[in-house]
Amino acid sequence: MFSQLPSNSKIGIIGSGQLGLMLVLEGIKLGFNFNVLGKTNDYVCRFAKCYGDKEIKQFLDDSEIVTFEFEQGNENAMIEASDMNKLYPNYKSVWLKIERDREKKFYSSYGFPIPSYKIAESGTDALKIAKDEFNGNAVIKRTSGGYDGKGQFYVRNNKITDNIENLRERMVVEELVEFDYESSVIITRDRSKIVSYPVSFNYNREGILIYNYGSIKDNGETEIARSIAEKLDYIGTMGVEFFIKNGKPLVNEFSPRVHNSGHYTLNSSFTSQFENHIRAISGIGLGQTRTIDFFGMVNILGKSGIKSNILNLGNVYWYGKDNTSPRRKVGHINVTESTQEDIKKKISLLLNELYVNDFNFLKYR
Amino acid sequence: MFSQLPSNSKIGIIGSGQLGLMLVLEGIKLGFNFNVLGKTNDYVCRFAKCYGDKEIKQFLDDSEIVTFEFEQGNENAMIEASDMNKLYPNYKSVWLKIERDREKKFYSSYGFPIPSYKIAESGTDALKIAKDEFNGNAVIKRTSGGYDGKGQFYVRNNKITDNIENLRERMVVEELVEFDYESSVIITRDRSKIVSYPVSFNYNREGILIYNYGSIKDNGETEIARSIAEKLDYIGTMGVEFFIKNGKPLVNEFSPRVHNSGHYTLNSSFTSQFENHIRAISGIGLGQTRTIDFFGMVNILGKSGIKSNILNLGNVYWYGKDNTSPRRKVGHINVTESTQEDIKKKISLLLNELYVNDFNFLKYR
Repeated sequence: MFSQLPSNSKIGIIGSGQLGLMLVLEGIKLGFNFNVLGKTNDYVCRFAKCYGDKEIKQFLDDSEIVTFEFEQGNENAMIEASDMNKLYPNYKSVWLKIERDREKKFYSSYGFPIPSYKIAESGTDALKIAKDEFNGNAVIKRTSGGYDGKGQFYVRNNKITDNIENLRERMVVEELVEFDYESSVIITRDRSKIVSYPVSFNYNREGILIYNYGSIKDNGETEIARSIAEKLDYIGTMGVEFFIKNGKPLVNEFSPRVHNSGHYTLNSSFTSQFENHIRAISGIGLGQTRTIDFFGMVNILGKSGIKSNILNLGNVYWYGKDNTSPRRKVGHINVTESTQEDIKKKISLLLNELYVNDFNFLKYR
Repeated sequence: MFSQLPSNSKIGIIGSGQLGLMLVLEGIKLGFNFNVLGKTNDYVCRFAKCYGDKEIKQFLDDSEIVTFEFEQGNENAMIEASDMNKLYPNYKSVWLKIERDREKKFYSSYGFPIPSYKIAESGTDALKIAKDEFNGNAVIKRTSGGYDGKGQFYVRNNKITDNIENLRERMVVEELVEFDYESSVIITRDRSKIVSYPVSFNYNREGILIYNYGSIKDNGETEIARSIAEKLDYIGTMGVEFFIKNGKPLVNEFSPRVHNSGHYTLNSSFTSQFENHIRAISGIGLGQTRTIDFFGMVNILGKSGIKSNILNLGNVYWYGKDNTSPRRKVGHINVTESTQEDIKKKISLLLNELYVNDFNFLKYR
């Protein structure tokens, strides 16, 4: 796309949240200029030119290439950017994420290992499938609008806490995997190669990543993630999440963007996932992913500030958000230590300082 | 100073060059706001509020703490900031650098190992000292205004290429050390501790750093740098340059600021020298300096742009400078490899691509 620096060209980012902010901060050092489509008073607008959600045409005309920070962003802008041949990664990667059953069919068609699933056409249908096909233990997921655990309902021993019988929509009913742990891997693909970062252990609660650390054993996650990117002819950074049971990985989902579980790369890797996304979509060549052996990351959720005792424990990225709600990601803390045990200890310390190790505040009420 | 994030306080930086730019970019992620005193149309002004050199009062009033990117910056602003108890590092560190003989006396008084030197009161006097005291082999340095090799004159076998006989000013005449190599080390000190980065091998030509790499053997450089910072009651990041001869370090000079030979920390270290400077002066606690084993950096000098063949070889920081002259630093490239040998090979490749291995363009004409 670009073959030299400085480039006078501008990169457009759909979405003005923290992922967009980190893409901009990591891209500035390469000399790029950024346009952002989203809220025009978000923190990122101090460092990029922001366009409101109704200024799609001006935003696209002013941007030579366009990417997105989040797959559930302004879909019209993504489609128009795709029609103008400016969108990276391609629209197919987003299309698969718009309806969850599309993503499942994609995995099935290429034989990627995933939990068993069935499609239901209503809430009642979903409950019947959970009972008949999955022995009364399943996760029922609305096909659209889900992230950070939204729109997911757990059935255990034929019991469900939410009332979904009135839902008249297509849903995915999935085997409730009693996994040993969850992991993820970040890859970046450009037109000539794929690079990958180490596999991390992820701890989620109420559908939100609380912390992750690594490097941990690769059970084949990297190979699967690379293969997903190949099948999609994907350009950019992608995160893929897995359930690991008896040493075997099952794909939970992929995210066609930079990923929360790759925030450690900002401090621990030679090239961050954000810089590599910018390098991939701009075509200037991927950066090396060499990573410090032991790393960890803790999300800062729902806080309006943090004190020096926490600042002393690791390296903070503060997202500059004004309004906070309990589940809102307002920053994260990266840590490094000489051993995995020390990483775990420091994460425990941080969780205690931040949350007194109580995550009930994350529950939807 | 600050004990929490986000802080509404603003950090002022005296100087609007690339070191200030990198301080700002590394400080933004901590949620700080920046004021810059310097040229109001420099690249950094896209990311910070810039004040012209005549707006010292407004700049200082608007900044809760003040630092500088370069010791030869606006001295009045430094003195006034110091009088307001806002300046970090302290003014003494700058004062020592204003007249070179002060710095030499500081080393001597504490017994730090340095090349032999004498003070001359004129050019003629300096030449006589070079002949009588140093056997016709010496470096004569003007006491003020010197950086990147400016104001330095080499005497070899009683011959000198420049005419300095008419200079009526104090000068330092220094033993011409036939060193084995040059090295440097970066340290950061705050109110409670000192952290250090690995020692690097530095290659200078015509007084300008061309490239450096590491980690290399520590001959005691780190201990000396830490001790210099202690003696100065220094707060912030400092670079110290050495001549190494027969495994013994001689201090060449210290720089009371982030340093060109520490640019590798942006990609290879958990916390960069820039972030640690901001962490030190703001008092939020130092970040860890764990560093990827093998790193290298090549300066991009006097170029108006670089092509993709170079972009592919490493990670670039582009400083966004409009006008370039041959000796001007316009960016740098960081590299990492699995072995020191591979680092050296990649640096050779970069030097060939950038300069066809010819550094004559650096000579003052």
